Amino acid sequence: MTSAPGSIGISLLGAGNIGAGVIAALAAGASRYAARVGRPLELRRVLVRDSARVRRGVRPEQVTTNIEDVLADDATKIVVELLGGEEPARTYIEQSLRAGRHVVTANKEVMAKFGATLLQIASDHGVRLLYEASVGGGIPVIAPLSRDLLANEISAVTAIINGTTNYMLTAMAQQGADYDDVLAEAQELGYAEPDPTADVEGIDASFKLAVLCGLAFNVNVAPTEVAREGITGITAQDIAYADELGYVIKLLARASLVDDEVEATVRPTLVALSEPLAKVDGVLNAVQVEGDLVGRVLFEGPGAGPGPTASSVLADVLDVAQDVATGRRPLAFIPRRTVRVRPPEEHESKYYLRLTVQDRPGVLARIATVLGNTSISIASFIQYEVADAPEGTAELVFTTHRASEGSLTEAIREIEQMDVVLEIGNVLPMAG
Amino acid sequence: MTSAPGSIGISLLGAGNIGAGVIAALAAGASRYAARVGRPLELRRVLVRDSARVRRGVRPEQVTTNIEDVLADDATKIVVELLGGEEPARTYIEQSLRAGRHVVTANKEVMAKFGATLLQIASDHGVRLLYEASVGGGIPVIAPLSRDLLANEISAVTAIINGTTNYMLTAMAQQGADYDDVLAEAQELGYAEPDPTADVEGIDASFKLAVLCGLAFNVNVAPTEVAREGITGITAQDIAYADELGYVIKLLARASLVDDEVEATVRPTLVALSEPLAKVDGVLNAVQVEGDLVGRVLFEGPGAGPGPTASSVLADVLDVAQDVATGRRPLAFIPRRTVRVRPPEEHESKYYLRLTVQDRPGVLARIATVLGNTSISIASFIQYEVADAPEGTAELVFTTHRASEGSLTEAIREIEQMDVVLEIGNVLPMAG
Repeated sequence: MTSAPGSIGISLLGAGNIGAGVIAALAAGASRYAARVGRPLELRRVLVRDSARVRRGVRPEQVTTNIEDVLADDATKIVVELLGGEEPARTYIEQSLRAGRHVVTANKEVMAKFGATLLQIASDHGVRLLYEASVGGGIPVIAPLSRDLLANEISAVTAIINGTTNYMLTAMAQQGADYDDVLAEAQELGYAEPDPTADVEGIDASFKLAVLCGLAFNVNVAPTEVAREGITGITAQDIAYADELGYVIKLLARASLVDDEVEATVRPTLVALSEPLAKVDGVLNAVQVEGDLVGRVLFEGPGAGPGPTASSVLADVLDVAQDVATGRRPLAFIPRRTVRVRPPEEHESKYYLRLTVQDRPGVLARIATVLGNTSISIASFIQYEVADAPEGTAELVFTTHRASEGSLTEAIREIEQMDVVLEIGNVLPMAG
Repeated sequence: MTSAPGSIGISLLGAGNIGAGVIAALAAGASRYAARVGRPLELRRVLVRDSARVRRGVRPEQVTTNIEDVLADDATKIVVELLGGEEPARTYIEQSLRAGRHVVTANKEVMAKFGATLLQIASDHGVRLLYEASVGGGIPVIAPLSRDLLANEISAVTAIINGTTNYMLTAMAQQGADYDDVLAEAQELGYAEPDPTADVEGIDASFKLAVLCGLAFNVNVAPTEVAREGITGITAQDIAYADELGYVIKLLARASLVDDEVEATVRPTLVALSEPLAKVDGVLNAVQVEGDLVGRVLFEGPGAGPGPTASSVLADVLDVAQDVATGRRPLAFIPRRTVRVRPPEEHESKYYLRLTVQDRPGVLARIATVLGNTSISIASFIQYEVADAPEGTAELVFTTHRASEGSLTEAIREIEQMDVVLEIGNVLPMAG
């Protein structure tokens, strides 16, 4: 393929929904983008799995199933990776960087697991690796953290970064519906996958939080080091009780740097209605950042979808294309520190605790004694009669003052063994 | 003054609260910033009005009252303008750019009135002019619009960009208090100036909106072309009626590009409670941007104060220092187009209309007839008895479907002249 003179070549790995969005936007915005960059952008090769399928805006000779065709194309300055998943995406990114190509990726899994290594390889080869679309879809998050808040020491990141679960929890709250009904509805609307595990178990959010930790605190946090709990155990009852307490339940991704140790969790969390994040509903995502100079800033918007993702991918493409046009040498990667990641039992929070007990005198006193003995101070207590529960049982909802999760776990182990306690319903942290 | 080898020199124009914040942060973050940039930053000259005052972190020989001392310092690569107001700030910025210095400014007035000219001068001299702190305090707004959303065609910007008035309107809503009481309270707390005109009349917001128009649509909009109305006419009554209708009143800055014409207004506006901007309370600022790819994104945070402003100023300083360190040539400025700015009578909106009338039969019919004759369709109507109003009077609140402001003004001129109409209380646009 011959290359247009002066143009900056871009090749795509993957041409699904997002790839199609990127290809369409590259064509539609061609003259604007050329003006912004100072040189035209040119679509070069498109790597696909099935080369027989016809793709709008792509000539047959551009399509390939072989990464070597992309790497061999000298006119390609920027490789855009949209394959998703770990392999072959990780290998292709590394090969592209080593071949001196800038890489733009939307791949949260690869960036969460191999981000530091790949960023170092990029730096060593004098190219850039950009990944705005890997977290928060169309919301600018990565660039604000790496540029606009750079003067700050970041102490905490608190986020709703999974649209599927936020849609489900919002629907449960607004309709009083149960988990299973809402999951079925989300699947029908295409907001949840046929196998929803990665979303509802918080795996997707843990990838994104690991990426944010690297950027916000410049430390290495593996996704497996993120304390993780999904939303499958959340009941309509929990949501109703939270509402009475002035809270909503969100799958909150939280990370903080305290005494040079990291806490990182993805967990269903009671969020006070006064918190901005409590008002982020439906498939929206939001990321709140706390810095020493700025205080708190919040970024909110669509966390998924071809348009928003293409917006972020193309922002990165234009940024690196401007570098190519203006002769900027990339900044050296600053290696990330490895600090201790605190295990969940050392985390501190206020907690919400729901139990089912036999409704007889003295039960509250016995539970309160156990909590007191483990230094957990009760902030509020309500006893509920549950309509469809067996005769003679009651539901107790406690909220605690700030306590260590270790002490709470210890207390709950003891409470669980009491003959009057029928079930530990849920134990959830509270924020705000 | 000798310069540290390899360092990038920064001089400050102005050393008030924000300047002090920048100086303190430059010292506190020195090693982190040096690592990020690849070269240390060095504070060079500090231009002040009163050179006798001692300033923390500044040596006496760094202080000057003469801009020539800054321009003559070859080691100064970046000039940070924090004087505020039109002159001498504008002149000093221009002199600095012409002398080949990058400039970082927090000056909304200069950027609103002379931004396009100064950006062209910067471009002609191969330097950059950055102004993140001019809009939205610590919230990243300018950089996201110029970089992160660059792939989008922006169709609308809707913002709360004046903390003083948002504090006041929030206090009025929460306390049911009147304008004068809330203003006195805001002045006491330091949220409002002794002369609050620039804030309460929407002048400050109109500067910021003009800056946003230039950036979002790449068109020239002078601050005087922004249709502007302050909050001085908003009563506790309006706020209560709005609440009943499911709205809050915000001083909303709105700009849109429709059929290649710009609409830009700063006006007290009824914002539906379902809108994210309705939940932005107190001194917080927020900017919502609509782009063709991304949809809607919202940026929220502290809109003023030394810490947040220093955060934005230093983000710009670090960005341009990275350019100095990596040899990036600045991008050429793309001249802004001049398009027609629509006069208010051509704007269209839903409207809220409050009138005081004589309470007698037939009044509603007469008013409805006038509205109908001018093609304004009534969406809702409520008649109130006002406790402390004279006997025999009533207050009418109408909301309309979408109508042109020209037709509405015409109708109101006619309604005003009816013998039964005692007063036109307020006419406010509605959003959402």
